[in-house]
Amino acid sequence: MIHRSESRAARRHSTLQFAKGLAIVMATLPFATTIAGDLPDAAQSDPVARGWMVGSPPAAEKTIRVGDGSFMKFPQLRWSLGHWRELFPTRNVSRGNGPVAPLPAGKPADLDGLTFKPIGTAQTMTWAQSLGANYTDGIVVLHRGRVVYERYLPSLGADQQHIAFSVTKSFIGTLAAMLVAEGKLDPGATVTKYIPELADSAFGDATVGQVLDMTTALDYSEDYADPNASFVPYARAAGMLPSPPGYTGPGTSYDFLKTLKKNGAHGVEFHYRSPNTDVLGWLIWRVTGRPADVVLQERVWSKLGAEGDAYMALDRVGAPLAAGGLNMRLRDLARFGEMIRLGGKWNGQQVVPAAVVDDIRGGASREAFRAAGYATLPGWSYHDQWWISHDDHGMFMARGIHGQAIYIDPKAEMVIARFASHPKAANVNLDPTSLPAYRAAADYLLLRGK
Amino acid sequence: MIHRSESRAARRHSTLQFAKGLAIVMATLPFATTIAGDLPDAAQSDPVARGWMVGSPPAAEKTIRVGDGSFMKFPQLRWSLGHWRELFPTRNVSRGNGPVAPLPAGKPADLDGLTFKPIGTAQTMTWAQSLGANYTDGIVVLHRGRVVYERYLPSLGADQQHIAFSVTKSFIGTLAAMLVAEGKLDPGATVTKYIPELADSAFGDATVGQVLDMTTALDYSEDYADPNASFVPYARAAGMLPSPPGYTGPGTSYDFLKTLKKNGAHGVEFHYRSPNTDVLGWLIWRVTGRPADVVLQERVWSKLGAEGDAYMALDRVGAPLAAGGLNMRLRDLARFGEMIRLGGKWNGQQVVPAAVVDDIRGGASREAFRAAGYATLPGWSYHDQWWISHDDHGMFMARGIHGQAIYIDPKAEMVIARFASHPKAANVNLDPTSLPAYRAAADYLLLRGK
Repeated sequence: MIHRSESRAARRHSTLQFAKGLAIVMATLPFATTIAGDLPDAAQSDPVARGWMVGSPPAAEKTIRVGDGSFMKFPQLRWSLGHWRELFPTRNVSRGNGPVAPLPAGKPADLDGLTFKPIGTAQTMTWAQSLGANYTDGIVVLHRGRVVYERYLPSLGADQQHIAFSVTKSFIGTLAAMLVAEGKLDPGATVTKYIPELADSAFGDATVGQVLDMTTALDYSEDYADPNASFVPYARAAGMLPSPPGYTGPGTSYDFLKTLKKNGAHGVEFHYRSPNTDVLGWLIWRVTGRPADVVLQERVWSKLGAEGDAYMALDRVGAPLAAGGLNMRLRDLARFGEMIRLGGKWNGQQVVPAAVVDDIRGGASREAFRAAGYATLPGWSYHDQWWISHDDHGMFMARGIHGQAIYIDPKAEMVIARFASHPKAANVNLDPTSLPAYRAAADYLLLRGK
Repeated sequence: MIHRSESRAARRHSTLQFAKGLAIVMATLPFATTIAGDLPDAAQSDPVARGWMVGSPPAAEKTIRVGDGSFMKFPQLRWSLGHWRELFPTRNVSRGNGPVAPLPAGKPADLDGLTFKPIGTAQTMTWAQSLGANYTDGIVVLHRGRVVYERYLPSLGADQQHIAFSVTKSFIGTLAAMLVAEGKLDPGATVTKYIPELADSAFGDATVGQVLDMTTALDYSEDYADPNASFVPYARAAGMLPSPPGYTGPGTSYDFLKTLKKNGAHGVEFHYRSPNTDVLGWLIWRVTGRPADVVLQERVWSKLGAEGDAYMALDRVGAPLAAGGLNMRLRDLARFGEMIRLGGKWNGQQVVPAAVVDDIRGGASREAFRAAGYATLPGWSYHDQWWISHDDHGMFMARGIHGQAIYIDPKAEMVIARFASHPKAANVNLDPTSLPAYRAAADYLLLRGK
């Protein structure tokens, strides 16, 4: 258990032990290799052990670049996800000047030996094993607002920032829902009421509410495993991937949105498509006059009593990458989750209106969600850019590729924040060893009481 | 006079008054147009008034980009210099977790009406007029460690970071001098003792001391006004300028250094050439095992009691731009200057050894310096990456293009930190209305006492 009061050296030692533990776990666990295929396991791909970007300067084979795409190759991405600002333009999201809102240490939860059955298997696994299976970079478990479990790999200090990828969407969706509650955004209005520039795109006849819940029908593939997926031109427009010579496609994330076409009827099926969140970011910018990350700073981040600043990745013209560009410290991610768990009330103030949090938790159409075919998320829905399980604990999540997560279990009064760098982008690769592990932790805490 | 305790709104009002004052000053002062030629004056080019990067998204003509080079065009650069991280990859330089070292308010210095004679003119000018003539973004004057004068343009808040350009060199030179004092760097040794990779370059037979004092003979032109100057391939290699299609030149700042050739004998004349500082940065990296910005954080920045973090711009492979990539808040720049003024002792500790500061202040060969032909700096020298006036006050400076400066006057116990965004890069354009103004302030404070 790593407490805030421990020295960095002590924590390093502790996390080194954790990493060594992982190595043993991974070496003896056939299951993990099943998850990641032939790729190096968590211990083998540890970015510190690999020596990425170490050297004066680093040797070519230890250097990670944007230009050659190495930053998102595995295992290089295990370094990149904790060093995003060293690769891309970013804007600070200030914590403000107020005191840190404490996350006091609670009675340590002895989770490591907890066993659970991964989805789709007959074999059990321990919580400790799940950390390696998920290529966890850091994880913190809050119970009733107290830190009961916390681990970091040596490559991620508690004071280091890590990219949250699509967990960013839940921040943006929460902001948008706040603007809806204030009447500044009308969920029934078409997007073009606010952004006429999108009239000729797929968003021409989409409503704000459909964008919020991703029930737009976009001719766009989010399959990160497919090199020909729409994500490539999308990332190119956003400045996240280099443009090939002679490239004449969209040069900004917003110009890309204008090119998107419809492939069906809006409002019928849920399909997870990142450009929806970029539209949300644009909507927030349009109705407030400020980029979404600046609005986030003013309305949310500066009120959390965060330990550190966050930051937002920008495209080539300074537009925030609303769909996945937010970076922060792990405990601050947990603070945001705890604020949501407490109905928006946190650090002595109502940061997000309770009605907005209630609306998020209520979810949306499970029927519409079913169409997306998520094997690991039966009966779930997606609302206001959050993932709602509709289970008996009322659990809901923010989820980002490669394993970024906020897991909120209202019944167990538990919040888990996790950064990871799994070799595969899609969370379907992590869910089998994550969701049952987190439920097991919730059940453990419920049984234990305080 | 703007105190730390004033609200941001009050300060904004005050700085708006300052900006309006500038508009009046500039409209009535023929001298200023002489300085800047036909370019818009300070008030006309105010980045807030211009509305750069405002809009959702900003209109094309209000958008500032790296790719099209607009970020360093005037007047766009007035915005860019305060938003560097939104344009480029950067690494944080943490202030650490300690308390802020106070810069208490002193008795306000009534400098605005102070008159002085700009270099090369018969006409007098007031201090207030000099602020506009220099396109000052922010200026703070410390007397005996107390803030006696402080102004910001609305485009630069006290809590905002601004690029220091070559003022960075004085940070790097100080670090290198510290390593010399510890015996980790030998000023008499050749650079290749530490960096054999540079054997075939101009640095092949240069000593560490020659690099520190820029008496290397490099076939490199630092003339920023010349579009064919060596600065273009240099900036391209460093990732600061986009590469043209088919570019096959050096892709990193260090690869560029390997290509530099000699154009004379080392150790004879001073010539200001930025690549020397990149070599210093590389030397620091090589002998400490850590990039210079990380060493700066550990040894200096985290000990200053800074109000905020600093950050370093990086090239495409994560190497710090030692010659000019540091960004920070203005008061923190002043703290660094005050620490140097106090012989390295600051915030309750000896941050830099007193002998190192003494060595810096002692300067180097004025004869070698004369060869560079600086009309505004007669009798000066350059040592350890600092500019030494050898005047009767023992004044010395850190200087960066477009007007970044630390001005230390030991006799007057005065430190001035200034951020500016002058249309022209070379400080020869600012010196006439800066150096005599700052000397006048020193004389005023000497006369006034405390």
